[in-house]
Amino acid sequence: MRQAGRYMAEYREIRARHSMLEMCSNPELAAEVTLQPIEHMEVDAAILFSDILLPLVPMGLQLEYVEGDGPVIDNPVRSVKDLERLRPVDVDESLGHVASAVKLVTDELGGRVPLIGFAGAPFTLASYAIEGGSSRNHVLTKRFMYEEPDAWHALLGKMSAVVVDQLTAQVHAGVSAVQLFDSWVGHVGPDDYTEFVLPHSRRVFERVATLGVPMIHFGVGTTGLLESMRDAGADVVGLDWRIPLDEGWRRLGPDTGVQGNLDPVTLFAPRDHIRKRVHDILAKADGQPGHIFNLGHGVLPETPVDNVKYVVDLVHEY
Amino acid sequence: MRQAGRYMAEYREIRARHSMLEMCSNPELAAEVTLQPIEHMEVDAAILFSDILLPLVPMGLQLEYVEGDGPVIDNPVRSVKDLERLRPVDVDESLGHVASAVKLVTDELGGRVPLIGFAGAPFTLASYAIEGGSSRNHVLTKRFMYEEPDAWHALLGKMSAVVVDQLTAQVHAGVSAVQLFDSWVGHVGPDDYTEFVLPHSRRVFERVATLGVPMIHFGVGTTGLLESMRDAGADVVGLDWRIPLDEGWRRLGPDTGVQGNLDPVTLFAPRDHIRKRVHDILAKADGQPGHIFNLGHGVLPETPVDNVKYVVDLVHEY
Repeated sequence: MRQAGRYMAEYREIRARHSMLEMCSNPELAAEVTLQPIEHMEVDAAILFSDILLPLVPMGLQLEYVEGDGPVIDNPVRSVKDLERLRPVDVDESLGHVASAVKLVTDELGGRVPLIGFAGAPFTLASYAIEGGSSRNHVLTKRFMYEEPDAWHALLGKMSAVVVDQLTAQVHAGVSAVQLFDSWVGHVGPDDYTEFVLPHSRRVFERVATLGVPMIHFGVGTTGLLESMRDAGADVVGLDWRIPLDEGWRRLGPDTGVQGNLDPVTLFAPRDHIRKRVHDILAKADGQPGHIFNLGHGVLPETPVDNVKYVVDLVHEY
Repeated sequence: MRQAGRYMAEYREIRARHSMLEMCSNPELAAEVTLQPIEHMEVDAAILFSDILLPLVPMGLQLEYVEGDGPVIDNPVRSVKDLERLRPVDVDESLGHVASAVKLVTDELGGRVPLIGFAGAPFTLASYAIEGGSSRNHVLTKRFMYEEPDAWHALLGKMSAVVVDQLTAQVHAGVSAVQLFDSWVGHVGPDDYTEFVLPHSRRVFERVATLGVPMIHFGVGTTGLLESMRDAGADVVGLDWRIPLDEGWRRLGPDTGVQGNLDPVTLFAPRDHIRKRVHDILAKADGQPGHIFNLGHGVLPETPVDNVKYVVDLVHEY
């Protein structure tokens, strides 16, 4: 998960002067906030500051970040006709600022810690494009799947192509690993996943695998989808906090790494509770290679920054 | 899940003239809408029209239903002091209208189909009381757990007592089965569930078991909690659509029944897709006794009512 965010005063200071899209499209700003957590809490990797929805803009979708409502798209994809309207994206031209940010960050890091890049997964991008923003029940997305399966697959094909190009550009610019975020896929049942989601995520991982960097696959609310997500082909699967880490890892098997899985709300708890839960996760990982300690989802805006540092230190000490 | 709702024109007609709380506290109105699905779609059981938050009002919480925002509580429980303010509830006196509605419905049904009663689970009631409404991350609820565990358990003890009294009153008034709704519990990890939730749900089921009616335990997003929810003691555990029915049932074991598990959004799909998914669930249940066909969550407001009827008919034909 992206480490930079509203829980850090240094981030809020910059964010107060720039919109979300400005921060993502300005390489200097993106690089600066990417580096903030490295400077303040000695995490073992930097996570690129960016946004999964950026490629929707050059596709022709009118994306805005509305205070309190999150992303809003004024001209969502609701029909086969809308789908034809979507333009192919030349990532180097339209999203070249992301590669520039990667270069600035890796130059600044000078190999101290690796930089992890990321992109949204085809399903989650399609869901935003169809719903026009966040959604509680994903009714429009699922109706599109069920009513227009050919158009659905065409839409996810377009999304997959741009995701592959994004991750390729990030790797060429210097990221050491990539993460694919399927933020909303936990709303989908196993049969829908297999039919409507998996083929497209798999195509992304097949193409990106040729670049030779480790690939992480993240979702939330995905306890019922872990094996299918593994089958999409990543090296590491993210676990949220709804499953014990050892149980999740057993289901994935020893050839797949795991990332996770502290409940982000644990960071609001008293220190003894935080310590107990961090140690419990590390004990469940049992020192096996292939565990990336992380939260089970993003750092929440009001999180006490000292508790984030405390967790980093606990993991290092352990 | 409650069957009556905005997807039915007959319901919307009554709802246009009465607030949610008026409908719940007027036995004639509650009985009328409870019976609407029975008259229109030949379901095999009636589900009492009520609301899980009703007991919060006599406890002293100021509950309102705000159009678009759902339930809002103006004086939420945020401290040990707030907790002391909560009044014990005399269910017969304060919620006697629910028992009256049960009597009206069972009289009207005359044994044609059973009536299922319900209540909110202690955790979900506490979460609403603390957050003051719906919540995305349940930060306040979990902080309360972690920071004030004794007060947390005292709060859930109060909730459990009123839930037991509610279900007892419903059984005495004539319901044939009861359901405990833990709507928000899917946000809690397995360790938190065991420590902060399970003891209270278990106490409810232990007490209600003495009344001799079947007990159903429902949650959503609970793929990682099924065994723990079973251990709380219900006869039937609800499955949402995020797990294949046969896999969920295997995990629960043959001594526990299952309820579920069609994705509510399936009801927006073309008929051939609906039929395929309904048949798939019934095939996975394999004719074993102890399966209650149901959606994996409530009927969504815009659902085409003809598709609900179609599913009922499909199940009966099969």
